[in-house]
Amino acid sequence: MRATFMYEAGDVRVQDAPDPVIEQPTDAVVRIVRSCICGSDLHPYHSLAASDGPAPMGHEFLGIVEEIGSDVSGLRRGDFVVSPFAFADNTCEFCREGLHTSCPKGGWYGAGGVGGAQAEAVRVPQAQGTLVKLPVGEDSALLPSLLTLSDVYGTGYHAARQARIRPGDTVTVIGDGAVGLLAVLSAKQLGAERIILMGRHKDRTDLGRDFGATDVVAERGEEGIAKVRELTGGHGTRAVLEAVGHMPAYEMAVGAVRPGGVISRVGVPQYEEAPVGFGSLFGPNITLTGGPAPVRAYIDELLPAVLDGTVEPGRVFDRTVSLEEVPDGYRAMDRREALKVLVTP
Amino acid sequence: MRATFMYEAGDVRVQDAPDPVIEQPTDAVVRIVRSCICGSDLHPYHSLAASDGPAPMGHEFLGIVEEIGSDVSGLRRGDFVVSPFAFADNTCEFCREGLHTSCPKGGWYGAGGVGGAQAEAVRVPQAQGTLVKLPVGEDSALLPSLLTLSDVYGTGYHAARQARIRPGDTVTVIGDGAVGLLAVLSAKQLGAERIILMGRHKDRTDLGRDFGATDVVAERGEEGIAKVRELTGGHGTRAVLEAVGHMPAYEMAVGAVRPGGVISRVGVPQYEEAPVGFGSLFGPNITLTGGPAPVRAYIDELLPAVLDGTVEPGRVFDRTVSLEEVPDGYRAMDRREALKVLVTP
Repeated sequence: MRATFMYEAGDVRVQDAPDPVIEQPTDAVVRIVRSCICGSDLHPYHSLAASDGPAPMGHEFLGIVEEIGSDVSGLRRGDFVVSPFAFADNTCEFCREGLHTSCPKGGWYGAGGVGGAQAEAVRVPQAQGTLVKLPVGEDSALLPSLLTLSDVYGTGYHAARQARIRPGDTVTVIGDGAVGLLAVLSAKQLGAERIILMGRHKDRTDLGRDFGATDVVAERGEEGIAKVRELTGGHGTRAVLEAVGHMPAYEMAVGAVRPGGVISRVGVPQYEEAPVGFGSLFGPNITLTGGPAPVRAYIDELLPAVLDGTVEPGRVFDRTVSLEEVPDGYRAMDRREALKVLVTP
Repeated sequence: MRATFMYEAGDVRVQDAPDPVIEQPTDAVVRIVRSCICGSDLHPYHSLAASDGPAPMGHEFLGIVEEIGSDVSGLRRGDFVVSPFAFADNTCEFCREGLHTSCPKGGWYGAGGVGGAQAEAVRVPQAQGTLVKLPVGEDSALLPSLLTLSDVYGTGYHAARQARIRPGDTVTVIGDGAVGLLAVLSAKQLGAERIILMGRHKDRTDLGRDFGATDVVAERGEEGIAKVRELTGGHGTRAVLEAVGHMPAYEMAVGAVRPGGVISRVGVPQYEEAPVGFGSLFGPNITLTGGPAPVRAYIDELLPAVLDGTVEPGRVFDRTVSLEEVPDGYRAMDRREALKVLVTP
């Protein structure tokens, strides 16, 4: 089959690779119908060392079950499914608590001998716990929105959930990428009244307004913080959803959050140490939360509004490429020419 | 009057000082009946620069109202009161939310022209919002326990509250100082089932067992973490209450907390930066919370069980000194010869 590999920063190639096969009785093999490129794929695109490549890429997909291992029940060949970006058994103590990203039998696509989803097919470990059947056909107009359940919608929702957004809340969302925009949508769904979106790409922040943002702040750094404080009577918002992952975004979050409030991070941190002492988090009793989203836990909850068209998270896709064109898709996202790139076979 | 000042690290003196007077119509002047020395007083005792001294010391007290400003209602001369360690108006939006430590009109004893409580008397700003009348006389046997409402009990309770301890919970408490021991008591009150106390002073951890600790771990660092994990099936406890404030305690908290759990800090951090990235908090979806405790918010809630003797938080006091002996009290706490020192006039 054809599959995408990143050799080092900036070097993405689509090439021949062995067809995936059942390796464990808990596996399935899925033919990819739609996949996409993630904002988090841009982190290695900027930094991957040649010694760490080539790495199989892609962790979001819809597909058709082609083969199933002997221990998998509840799935059949031909089922149309969505996969969360992390696989998990969905039965352990962590999965039962909704923390599928900490499942001891779980893991990530593109690592540990599991392939990536920017490919013609992929082996899915823990298939019974991981894959969720979809009640539509592979020609449905809903595919882009359904695909967001694989990562970016569930991740934006995780940011809002971990921040315990409630009706009437005030929220700042940092980042106008797909996750930030879907954090806006999620905060709106949970009842937030004031949603300030920090971003400086007008086409994206316009979509953010459609998703529920009440204010847009294009300024960054100290100016951005001052603007958020100005909009909120001087104190900032109770919740800040941080969907970027770089230190300047963390610093803006600290500046924009109200005393007693919460910073919820879903952008993968590109730093290990950060300010958390008296002058940042401790003094004003700020809570820091977030992490890799257990999107499997949210699919059942978010699916109905996608199916009935109440929400259209798939609007984050603004470009479509074929599998062979994936390297062009990376370039377009890296240059901010595309918000999020959908990949067809 | 006589009052305590710290001149620099290790140099505490009791000396003559002007009697406090009403400066603002919202002030009261209180004659001190009991005060004490706080574990947090040991931080400047180790590090205060001579250029930052002399600093008035003490922020926990019971006392008799001697004078009240013209804008103070609800208090009379002769009232016996307890003060939270931070004063606040108790009417602003933050106070109404129970975050008195962020009150814009609030502040700290021993700073900004307000004296300390290791003294014969103290001026109390925002007296109406700050002081809480006690239904006992100044000869009550309950004074030590009532005095803990000023700081250490409310601070231990804040750690447990911010961690959202619930019935059946598993908790690790780091630190066998007064706050750590009262965090144990608080976790027990909130229904925690398993309470692992990390501390290495047997007399203190014995008191911790009396307060509700089910296990004691004397080891520190990686060994301490391994012990907590061994006691909890490998994963750590859902909540970790950190009542120390030094980086090794933070690192133990990160090691002892279960994926999806919460680290609640009430030890004043003696660091500004700390690990919060993928390898520490983010990957396992750990929440970091805590800060200076809004103890005013908890006094009404905690007072009944103190008055009826259900709890005896005053057991943390194991030495009593007179005001003139306060420097000896600092030395005893610094050398770990005393857990917490009560100060009589």
